[in-house]
Amino acid sequence: MFAENQKILSLSGGVGGAKLVKGLTHCLSPEQLTVVANTGDDFEHFGLRICPDLDTLMYTLTGINDNKRGWGLARETWQCLSAIEQVSGDTWFKLGDKDLATHLTRTHLLNEGKTLTEVTTELFRKLGGDANILPMSDDLVSTIVETTIGDLSFQHYFVREHCMPTVTGFRFDGVELARPQNEFLTLLRGNDLAATVICPSNPFVSVDPILTMSGVRESLIQNFAPVVAVSPIVAGKAIKGPAAKMMQELSMPANAGAVAQYYGDLLDGFVIDESDASHARFIEALGIKVLVTPTIMNTLQDRIDLAQQVLQFSKSLA
Amino acid sequence: MFAENQKILSLSGGVGGAKLVKGLTHCLSPEQLTVVANTGDDFEHFGLRICPDLDTLMYTLTGINDNKRGWGLARETWQCLSAIEQVSGDTWFKLGDKDLATHLTRTHLLNEGKTLTEVTTELFRKLGGDANILPMSDDLVSTIVETTIGDLSFQHYFVREHCMPTVTGFRFDGVELARPQNEFLTLLRGNDLAATVICPSNPFVSVDPILTMSGVRESLIQNFAPVVAVSPIVAGKAIKGPAAKMMQELSMPANAGAVAQYYGDLLDGFVIDESDASHARFIEALGIKVLVTPTIMNTLQDRIDLAQQVLQFSKSLA
Repeated sequence: MFAENQKILSLSGGVGGAKLVKGLTHCLSPEQLTVVANTGDDFEHFGLRICPDLDTLMYTLTGINDNKRGWGLARETWQCLSAIEQVSGDTWFKLGDKDLATHLTRTHLLNEGKTLTEVTTELFRKLGGDANILPMSDDLVSTIVETTIGDLSFQHYFVREHCMPTVTGFRFDGVELARPQNEFLTLLRGNDLAATVICPSNPFVSVDPILTMSGVRESLIQNFAPVVAVSPIVAGKAIKGPAAKMMQELSMPANAGAVAQYYGDLLDGFVIDESDASHARFIEALGIKVLVTPTIMNTLQDRIDLAQQVLQFSKSLA
Repeated sequence: MFAENQKILSLSGGVGGAKLVKGLTHCLSPEQLTVVANTGDDFEHFGLRICPDLDTLMYTLTGINDNKRGWGLARETWQCLSAIEQVSGDTWFKLGDKDLATHLTRTHLLNEGKTLTEVTTELFRKLGGDANILPMSDDLVSTIVETTIGDLSFQHYFVREHCMPTVTGFRFDGVELARPQNEFLTLLRGNDLAATVICPSNPFVSVDPILTMSGVRESLIQNFAPVVAVSPIVAGKAIKGPAAKMMQELSMPANAGAVAQYYGDLLDGFVIDESDASHARFIEALGIKVLVTPTIMNTLQDRIDLAQQVLQFSKSLA
């Protein structure tokens, strides 16, 4: 579909994004596809550097993720967490014994002076992965969720507080100084880019941290390659996570059309689910082409099918 | 034997020391006994602060230690270590899943700004302990083993290199600036101290880091309370660890007499095993009183018996 020297860029958060990325890896070679992951959710816990979206991508692409639970590793054990419960009670973030190895090794390699890009590549190769997964930046960016009970770091909002507080806004601490990852920046500014696919991830906390870094949004618009997003909202609900709840709290309609409008002039195309076909006209009126197709990805074949649809749609917009 | 207001100070390293301390806790109340642990072996691994001697003391005194293996926790599991093997191969230090909870919690609390003393007390209470265990200092001291293949941090020498390199000397980085732990210092300088018991720990790497801190050795000598050590060398061998091998490499005779001579004018009394009775005359000639008694502690009763012997001996020297 795309020539070997045509590059596809994919911007992804965690679970929903990883599903589509999994499909994309079945349609494109590791040389064609570059996956840029949100690192605004990253945090330090017990002295360890934890990168939830990178981990979800690594685990999903290598097939060692826990599909049922939706996060972490399959066949995980929880001996350490049980012991933490006794000595500190600080168990809001569920650290599995095997998952811990990822955080320990990452922290160790970062402490040795390696960049997050180098560490991610090394970890992913050791786990058996061959896709090109990059952190959005080697610098620290911290997503802060502004709520009616005060500012919360993303993991505190998402995991500890179960997304209960009412959202009033978002902030990405450090984003002004964060330099987009080198290879990502080169791709954005070069002529090899054939299309950018924004995965069905949360626009506010998974995609915006990437877009907000200096020059990213502007470069995506200036680059001739089309930008296509897949709606994370299907039939007024997020497949997973708090996107729909956030939209309501921010006084936006919680539907696919509002997501397209939120991305605005960044988008050349928007992919919505069959159940949201009625929103197509509103989105087209924004000057954004629409693809209506099944977007719920339960099986591997669903992921591959959607990836193929998205890539064909992107190609048609070039 | 001792009045409630008479304080006993015990200086301890890991395994051997912890056995005698366990006995001492059966003879003395938590108010009477203060245990000061070597922290020169402490190190940072995968971003975590690990304190092997404090951990061994905490685990041994609460009875959750693994007696057979000699270190770590009973009924330990190794899921994380297996996963680390895959992603980094850096498995020379055997991190158990449950043991990890101690290191994670300690690191977390230290990062919150608590002192190692506060953290140790909190961890030990949560594990169910009620003895008064103190780190020798809240400041960092790092034992460096100087060897014919170069300088090695203690854990690299002890665990990674299995004590194989030939020792030429020792150094305690940071010891000049390290302030002895507050309560320890108060005890050393006050009139409540009735006796100091140096456990059967390695003189060079377990006891010397404590003694080398500014004022410690001098205060122990100046204080009227007798100082009694238990020989870690029995019949020319260390019960556990490299003490005898180190003595040979440092051109010292590897026997109980040489240990007494090494401690020198610090000691009022020295406790040797029955099998070393022939060394008593040499030690007495140094001006150090000798108690000959069974010192090998296999059972809990052995530990209590030796502790009682040592305390009675100390009292007789007052």
